[in-house]
Amino acid sequence: MIRDASGMLNAYSGDGAVDEMTETLIRRRQSLLGPAYRLFYERPIHMVRGEGPWLFDASGERYLDAYNNVVSVGHCHPHIVDAIARQAAVLNTHTRYLGDSILDYAERILATMPDALGNIMFTCTGSEANDLALRVARHCTDRKGVIVTQLAYHGVTQAVSEVSPSLGFGGERPPHVRTIAAPDTYRLEGDIAELLAAQTRQAVAELEAAGYGVAALMCDTIFSSDGVFTTRGLLSGAAAAVQAAGGLYIADEVQAGFGRTGENMWGFARHGVTPDIVTMGKPMGNGHPVAAAIMRPELLAQFGERARYFNTFGGNTVSCAAAAATLDVIEQEGLPANADKVGAYFRQRLQTLMTRHDCIGDVRGAGLFLGLELVSARDGKIPNATLASRVVNGMRDKRILISTTGIHGNVLKIRPPLIWQQEHVDMFVDSLDSLLKDLAR
Amino acid sequence: MIRDASGMLNAYSGDGAVDEMTETLIRRRQSLLGPAYRLFYERPIHMVRGEGPWLFDASGERYLDAYNNVVSVGHCHPHIVDAIARQAAVLNTHTRYLGDSILDYAERILATMPDALGNIMFTCTGSEANDLALRVARHCTDRKGVIVTQLAYHGVTQAVSEVSPSLGFGGERPPHVRTIAAPDTYRLEGDIAELLAAQTRQAVAELEAAGYGVAALMCDTIFSSDGVFTTRGLLSGAAAAVQAAGGLYIADEVQAGFGRTGENMWGFARHGVTPDIVTMGKPMGNGHPVAAAIMRPELLAQFGERARYFNTFGGNTVSCAAAAATLDVIEQEGLPANADKVGAYFRQRLQTLMTRHDCIGDVRGAGLFLGLELVSARDGKIPNATLASRVVNGMRDKRILISTTGIHGNVLKIRPPLIWQQEHVDMFVDSLDSLLKDLAR
Repeated sequence: MIRDASGMLNAYSGDGAVDEMTETLIRRRQSLLGPAYRLFYERPIHMVRGEGPWLFDASGERYLDAYNNVVSVGHCHPHIVDAIARQAAVLNTHTRYLGDSILDYAERILATMPDALGNIMFTCTGSEANDLALRVARHCTDRKGVIVTQLAYHGVTQAVSEVSPSLGFGGERPPHVRTIAAPDTYRLEGDIAELLAAQTRQAVAELEAAGYGVAALMCDTIFSSDGVFTTRGLLSGAAAAVQAAGGLYIADEVQAGFGRTGENMWGFARHGVTPDIVTMGKPMGNGHPVAAAIMRPELLAQFGERARYFNTFGGNTVSCAAAAATLDVIEQEGLPANADKVGAYFRQRLQTLMTRHDCIGDVRGAGLFLGLELVSARDGKIPNATLASRVVNGMRDKRILISTTGIHGNVLKIRPPLIWQQEHVDMFVDSLDSLLKDLAR
Repeated sequence: MIRDASGMLNAYSGDGAVDEMTETLIRRRQSLLGPAYRLFYERPIHMVRGEGPWLFDASGERYLDAYNNVVSVGHCHPHIVDAIARQAAVLNTHTRYLGDSILDYAERILATMPDALGNIMFTCTGSEANDLALRVARHCTDRKGVIVTQLAYHGVTQAVSEVSPSLGFGGERPPHVRTIAAPDTYRLEGDIAELLAAQTRQAVAELEAAGYGVAALMCDTIFSSDGVFTTRGLLSGAAAAVQAAGGLYIADEVQAGFGRTGENMWGFARHGVTPDIVTMGKPMGNGHPVAAAIMRPELLAQFGERARYFNTFGGNTVSCAAAAATLDVIEQEGLPANADKVGAYFRQRLQTLMTRHDCIGDVRGAGLFLGLELVSARDGKIPNATLASRVVNGMRDKRILISTTGIHGNVLKIRPPLIWQQEHVDMFVDSLDSLLKDLAR
């Protein structure tokens, strides 16, 4: 069994940890898809069905999904399934014909944004939305430099992989990219927002000195791959610093958006800033490939002067139906408020667990995006990535799905569907409690 | 009415050419989506329904679709609609769990490829597939230079827009990009394949001298945006030249793939070459956002050593269901053979039209991808873009959908669904005949 640093399965060596059918699937997969694909867990799961907060494997076992933020309103929500099926049967076409569904959706989603953000462009993936945001930022500033956090992830196109340190930069940081610290509220002391602002000013100066200038600061507003940091206001100084230098602040809401962080639809609201561009993706269509970049019309006016952009599938009629239906459910089921309420209960129960388990160093969260820091000693806050990997795999064996994140690989990343209720939290916390007891033996 | 060079509507000035409802939609659209979005036709169409080869507008008028290559097996084909609806109701999840549908599809599609091309990676759009192909090519060659044709289009991410001269390079050709001629079989004389090969060798030398080296030659195998050139073997020398220089030949099949060019599933087969990477998209899921890059496993082995790639929606269970159902229809309805047969009839009827209309300079095509060159004089082959724009808009008024392409903007681009029969060809040709007569008056 060969695992990479994040505990994901890379290649299977046939050591008998999984049954024969699973091993056959893994071997077929390696042979057909090649080595760039990773599997979750030491014993990967063959999923065949999803329903609400649950996933089911090929043998009928049920798993509590505490990880998949794409299916934000629950697996196979009938309202969205129906909307996709109905629209796919009537018309699936692109934006070079007129249609009203794209405009109706645009109005609804723009109404959730600050007034200054008045235009939306549709893509299919968060990567494409971030890539477009960078293109617009570079076009409008006539500069190339980008500032991101230490272990940021913004996607897989060439341009956004270059500003995604979590992908390893292919060995070397590109010269037009600068990083600021992950806002590690657990370990850093003092005013972290001011620290980020100071580092942003320094990065701007370096990019200017190197002749690139600063096009943008791009930040995931919940710092998912940096380790999930949820303190309010962390980005206020950094965003102001980049805007003062004539660069754009791009809020990457692919992870935090659509009510996940609780009372607000968007993570940037928790930082008290107004972005120049907001990107969104994963949960936008509850699994259907739809994403978008929302921005100030002045930027698009400039971009539109010389550049053309047509995304064949972006904003097509079926994508818009999926996105509108997802927004219906978020609104009708009051999911931001639910995320807020259930998330608060979740954090409180996890904090109670800290009294029984010394290995829990910190519990963080906003709404239903939580991070739980595992340490080998609370004194010194020494990260314990080995334990984190054991917990992820141990929870999998208890049929609860999570993963790890963070600079040290020791933070449990917990992002259940926003429909979770207290009973799901209890199931999760009781299982984690029992697992940590077992692992401590 | 402000149109761009290709005859697409840019901004609507309210000159009364469209009815009030249409004008309202156009104004809402400009205000919400901004200026980067373009509409087809001087009088844009509000589409509300699709069925087989037909589209229907809001007033119930029926249009013959001779343009949309995405819905390659026909609008709203029930087999694909059912597959999407069924899978969306059961499970829509990503590739970090095991599943067999992605592997079954991978086996089927890889079986249509040369043996050397043994791995597939899934994305959501052709742009993402081409972007990934470039990432792999640059990683494996440790070089940056790319060679493309004169007016190539490969997509909208930053990296692929840089190798898409048809988007205008934002003003200036990037220094790591070189172009070779569009293989204009109508105007160029002599051995065009050898001309492209010689220009490729020259471009390789220039890229090496500039310190970039050559990572890849990327070519649309039917040269859609260059003007639709369909002579066999055009790419054989150029592909060999780049491979001899240690670069990769990337066949962009986003336009030509999946049987559109007739007897073969893939356009590169008509050139007698074996690509290192093949990319595909648009018709892969008949409108559902699914795309892929197929490549030599040795390349992915190298890429996988340092790079990671995870596309959240790429190859998800619903995408695979859509792609598999589309492939079912292509196979069961024998669409490549139909494209071959109906395409041959189509070309023959258009060629007959040449005897009556001097403005038709050339008729080209492979399967159901046709190009018709409009000239102001056959002597001198003088391109007539104004006429082409008039024909596109005139055909729209006769409720037949086409567009223009090519370096001179004078080539009618004709790409109907592969289910067309002779009756649709007759309807098209009779309408064009009558329109050209009217316009000649």
